Amino acid sequence: MTVDPLAATCPVPLAENERVLLGHGSGGQLMAELLTEVIIPAFDVPGPLEDAAVLDAAGTELVFSTDSFVVSPRFFPGGDIGSLAVHGTVNDVAMRGARPIALSLAYVLEEGLPLAELRAVTESVAIAARAAGVPVVTGDTKVVGRGAADGLYLTTTGVGLRLPGARPSAAAGKPGDVVLLSGPIGSHGTAVLTAREGLGFDTEIRSDSQPLHDLVAAMITVGGAAVHALRDPTRGGLASALNELAAASGVAVEIDEPGVPVPEPVAAICELLGLDPLHVANEGCLVALVAPEAADAVLAAMRARPEGAQALAIGRVLEGAPGRVTARTLVGSTRVVDMVIGEQLPRIC
Amino acid sequence: MTVDPLAATCPVPLAENERVLLGHGSGGQLMAELLTEVIIPAFDVPGPLEDAAVLDAAGTELVFSTDSFVVSPRFFPGGDIGSLAVHGTVNDVAMRGARPIALSLAYVLEEGLPLAELRAVTESVAIAARAAGVPVVTGDTKVVGRGAADGLYLTTTGVGLRLPGARPSAAAGKPGDVVLLSGPIGSHGTAVLTAREGLGFDTEIRSDSQPLHDLVAAMITVGGAAVHALRDPTRGGLASALNELAAASGVAVEIDEPGVPVPEPVAAICELLGLDPLHVANEGCLVALVAPEAADAVLAAMRARPEGAQALAIGRVLEGAPGRVTARTLVGSTRVVDMVIGEQLPRIC
Repeated sequence: MTVDPLAATCPVPLAENERVLLGHGSGGQLMAELLTEVIIPAFDVPGPLEDAAVLDAAGTELVFSTDSFVVSPRFFPGGDIGSLAVHGTVNDVAMRGARPIALSLAYVLEEGLPLAELRAVTESVAIAARAAGVPVVTGDTKVVGRGAADGLYLTTTGVGLRLPGARPSAAAGKPGDVVLLSGPIGSHGTAVLTAREGLGFDTEIRSDSQPLHDLVAAMITVGGAAVHALRDPTRGGLASALNELAAASGVAVEIDEPGVPVPEPVAAICELLGLDPLHVANEGCLVALVAPEAADAVLAAMRARPEGAQALAIGRVLEGAPGRVTARTLVGSTRVVDMVIGEQLPRIC
Repeated sequence: MTVDPLAATCPVPLAENERVLLGHGSGGQLMAELLTEVIIPAFDVPGPLEDAAVLDAAGTELVFSTDSFVVSPRFFPGGDIGSLAVHGTVNDVAMRGARPIALSLAYVLEEGLPLAELRAVTESVAIAARAAGVPVVTGDTKVVGRGAADGLYLTTTGVGLRLPGARPSAAAGKPGDVVLLSGPIGSHGTAVLTAREGLGFDTEIRSDSQPLHDLVAAMITVGGAAVHALRDPTRGGLASALNELAAASGVAVEIDEPGVPVPEPVAAICELLGLDPLHVANEGCLVALVAPEAADAVLAAMRARPEGAQALAIGRVLEGAPGRVTARTLVGSTRVVDMVIGEQLPRIC
């Protein structure tokens, strides 16, 4: 069978004779279908899909998360595949309320990759890991023939220790919670997009890629178990993150759309390309559902750190249709915020 | 610059204008050069290269290891990329004397991969993980466009807990140690080779791919800290494993070549293709350096388990040129056992 490229933009049922589509990597509905219909049923996964798993290791609570990175191009304003691989995994570990203590790094290299580029990416991993205070302690290197990979893919896996009192889970949001956002959205996805050859954009947008574990630690120190849920809105953007939290927690979420900060150049590119900033990937901000009595203190703690200097409350958790995310618009109406369906921006991370 | 394919079979200095060669993934000398000249210097790696890192996690000794799997073809006699990814990482964790407690699984999928194949591989991962008693607890899925990957790559990462009394390290071999081998060599590499299209081999060789953590636990229970070093001789085969142990421990190793078990069909294919069975990859056996006073008991414990039923002593650790591995041949002479240099069998794991 051949795959109609247009099929990547509308949901399709997964039959045995079907094939992987680009949209299955989107962080949106197609990806959710792939996970729930093909991958998850094979494993005994307890509870909702989280950014990271929590393990009991002889009485110590470990947090464990993995991510492969296939971003194209590998170098973009504000980062590269190496720094992104460190930040992405550090952040996934942090989203379960943990302090990351170590990373592993696995390379798949394509024959013919310039060693200078491998050196540059490796150096970037090392610098990012050192800056985050999370050492790379083990790794692997595989080489495949020309044409069998697009230069270089990285997989980072992180191990962390749960912070005392931390209990964040995608399933722990409660009606009444305040939705906090640590900073403006849309910079990562649009920075990668503008770095792609041939698009001819010339903007000052830089990826927001940065580690968020110190921000999370500051939030947990002040808020403890009142920090109900944390998620970094990467693939699929803020819309997917909120939909996933709402679905896993069985609650509704309402955000004030005009209050969601979108940098002006990001808004301009989204306008030009018909992208919804709520669907664009981020790599340096987080969204939190926090019990109302702790929200002000947690927000203050976020604002006291550079990664959270622009943090703000953007909405609230409601009783109501479980999994429903809505946005109050500038004119006072309400719209449903859906997950992106297929692939908006392939290979964004 | 273009790369002379022949260059993959002889060592080349790594200059800035050079490129990744298939031989850099060989598990041999070229790979060692890539690691020591390009990758390792970027990180603060203490001590020798091990199969897995040991971490202190709030007083608990964790073992942590990662591997990407790019084997071609993905299905071969005795296994597939899914079961191999579980066994490979379980075994790397076990080689540091640990009981694996959890795995992560990251996919890089090529657009167009049949979902049926993704299902089959995923099911194989799940079956192998369940059989090994090591759950897959977290994962990631990325999709790249057609031509940007060869179907499907997996990266598994494992976390384990050190067994009481276990201290194995590549650097801990001592003169006088007995070299124990858990079973016959060469089946994995030759099974994958014969599964490649167009080679037209018809043999009964099956990969030896299997988990070895229960075997390691049995060895540690009996031998404790007398089990000085453990390694699973994967890429680069038994020759690379012994060279790495000898170099890391600063000792010489001598093996009795006629005593190294090579199944007859494996020997026949190696003879035909000019391969040295000592260089062929394994995925279900291990080599151990064990203090002489404990060697008999450890060997008996190995033989009491199915994975070690054919275990035997194949040599000894000597004072002498650090890193030198020699083999006493059938006619009583001695030859140097070198690491494979470049790529003997690409994409074997």
